[in-house]
Amino acid sequence: MTAPLMQKQWRLAARPDGIPDRSHFELAEVPIPDLEAGKAVVKTLYLGVAPVMLRYMRNETEFESPMALGAVMAGRGVAQVVESDCDDLPVGAIVQARLGWQEYALIDTSHRPAPFLLPTDLPLSHGIGAVSLSGITALVGVRDIGLVKTTDRILVSGAAGGVGSHVADIAKALGAREVVGIAGGPEKCRRLQADMRYDRVIDYKNENMHQALDSAFPDGIDLYFDNVGGPLLDNVLARLRRRARIVICGSISEYLVEKDDKHRFANLQNLGRQDAKMEGFFVFDYEHLYPECIDTLAGWVRNGLLNPIEDISVGIETMPDALADLYLGTNVGVRMVHVGEPNPHP
Amino acid sequence: MTAPLMQKQWRLAARPDGIPDRSHFELAEVPIPDLEAGKAVVKTLYLGVAPVMLRYMRNETEFESPMALGAVMAGRGVAQVVESDCDDLPVGAIVQARLGWQEYALIDTSHRPAPFLLPTDLPLSHGIGAVSLSGITALVGVRDIGLVKTTDRILVSGAAGGVGSHVADIAKALGAREVVGIAGGPEKCRRLQADMRYDRVIDYKNENMHQALDSAFPDGIDLYFDNVGGPLLDNVLARLRRRARIVICGSISEYLVEKDDKHRFANLQNLGRQDAKMEGFFVFDYEHLYPECIDTLAGWVRNGLLNPIEDISVGIETMPDALADLYLGTNVGVRMVHVGEPNPHP
Repeated sequence: MTAPLMQKQWRLAARPDGIPDRSHFELAEVPIPDLEAGKAVVKTLYLGVAPVMLRYMRNETEFESPMALGAVMAGRGVAQVVESDCDDLPVGAIVQARLGWQEYALIDTSHRPAPFLLPTDLPLSHGIGAVSLSGITALVGVRDIGLVKTTDRILVSGAAGGVGSHVADIAKALGAREVVGIAGGPEKCRRLQADMRYDRVIDYKNENMHQALDSAFPDGIDLYFDNVGGPLLDNVLARLRRRARIVICGSISEYLVEKDDKHRFANLQNLGRQDAKMEGFFVFDYEHLYPECIDTLAGWVRNGLLNPIEDISVGIETMPDALADLYLGTNVGVRMVHVGEPNPHP
Repeated sequence: MTAPLMQKQWRLAARPDGIPDRSHFELAEVPIPDLEAGKAVVKTLYLGVAPVMLRYMRNETEFESPMALGAVMAGRGVAQVVESDCDDLPVGAIVQARLGWQEYALIDTSHRPAPFLLPTDLPLSHGIGAVSLSGITALVGVRDIGLVKTTDRILVSGAAGGVGSHVADIAKALGAREVVGIAGGPEKCRRLQADMRYDRVIDYKNENMHQALDSAFPDGIDLYFDNVGGPLLDNVLARLRRRARIVICGSISEYLVEKDDKHRFANLQNLGRQDAKMEGFFVFDYEHLYPECIDTLAGWVRNGLLNPIEDISVGIETMPDALADLYLGTNVGVRMVHVGEPNPHP
């Protein structure tokens, strides 16, 4: 008689109104899945968190399958293939894939974006951030949506966050001259300048934003990489240069406010007046660019142009806290959880 | 002893707060200019008007030279070259150029967009509209900014106007299935359907816009070609489908309101939520596309896919009224003025 090997798994227990916490999840102990035809069993090494997860939990997105209460919490991460009946997922391979918040997952290549292989010479944690969806989001946003130019005066909000922490390095690798970052609190702001190569830093918690933007952008803003939305976006709309571009990567300030409290934008008409562009994008829609983006980002990491900042807690038990940190604004760099070590002989 | 040949010319006399009228201009009688080295003297045949002219008059634009009080009112039109010292502007040629509101002009090829030759087999008036800047604006907006797809559900405001009157034909020539137009009043709406091939028509003066948009777009809007801005744009923002595109061609509703009365947009965050794009554009920035656009538009006029609607008054004296009509909303199709006939033997 044999007993199945067990694993831990986080399930959605309640739909949060405000910041999600442990009460919205339940930690279950369940058997490690058996291999099925055409699939692979993988062991989770790192799991990432992203602001958009609050929208999954609330069932507000069309691009992620509706998540029922009691379902495994959705999310992607880095994993090692430990059993396989799929040629594209050979045993031992390190992949970035949709795993769910669990220690082992049964995956295949049908889900979009499909699992992708990671560079083997870089730290595994970079498969959550710099050479994965955070880095790709920053690269696609700056280059393909933001159409960055060498003459651009660039502003980034949420500059210490998972995506924002890559933007200055990437913009500079693409030739940009000056990048200004916004973050909250002196310690975050210090790290923007020291570790993330932001040229100027605005502390939104301790500075008057109008004065700070006047001083940093006396002639206006060419490119705004927006991770927060809300009143700050309106402030930027008032300062657009001709043919400016606003890249809407996230609107975390708006996910947590009541519908009736949403900011009403006074300066949107400047978009038309300045023949500017504002564009939202979700990295899942740009899967065709992933191989080239990963090559580009890995190259910059290797030659030192991209310096990934990571914020790692240990153990799958810490997942709800990792997610909450995004909304509490406590993380610096890519927030992730180290769930397990790769098997030496998978 | 000879006296110079004289011409009429409209000059800017005052900067309008609201709708411009005759009091903002003065009609002067001045000599027809003499030919200068490298330039050409042209005879004005048709002059166009455009909503953006109010912004020239108020000195609000960077893309048109600042216009001093007393200067010839800026504007483009169709003209015949009558004297020339410029190989690109041969005597007899019919060109679209920056003329100013006057019967004769001294032009060269230095001003951007440069003068361009018009197809010789089409009515000269089409050089104001369908195969010129109005048509090019509609084509660039629908195709290059709006990235029209055959599955798009398209909405056009200001649909009876100089640009809007071309949009349904152009969208359909590019394969679009259904185009809904918005205009004010039963007569305009009748003409949208009869002459401009709009599939459905909404009369904003006599219908409840929320109900009308609910009924016309039960699943939301893929592409909005915006000529008006303001509350209607906000209403559309609330109805965006995923990866929708909003093309900001004009915001005529906002040119005339006081700064403190500007609409405050409640639904802008949907742009980020739906990974949609909103982009303002000005046709002067797309000069590199003009030759191809003119070929494309002229081809559609010849084969009947594009049916230009024109609204023509006669005599340069009518210029201020032609401009005012745009803001009063009285024109149907491209508002222009027939200033003169080409010389038979220039």
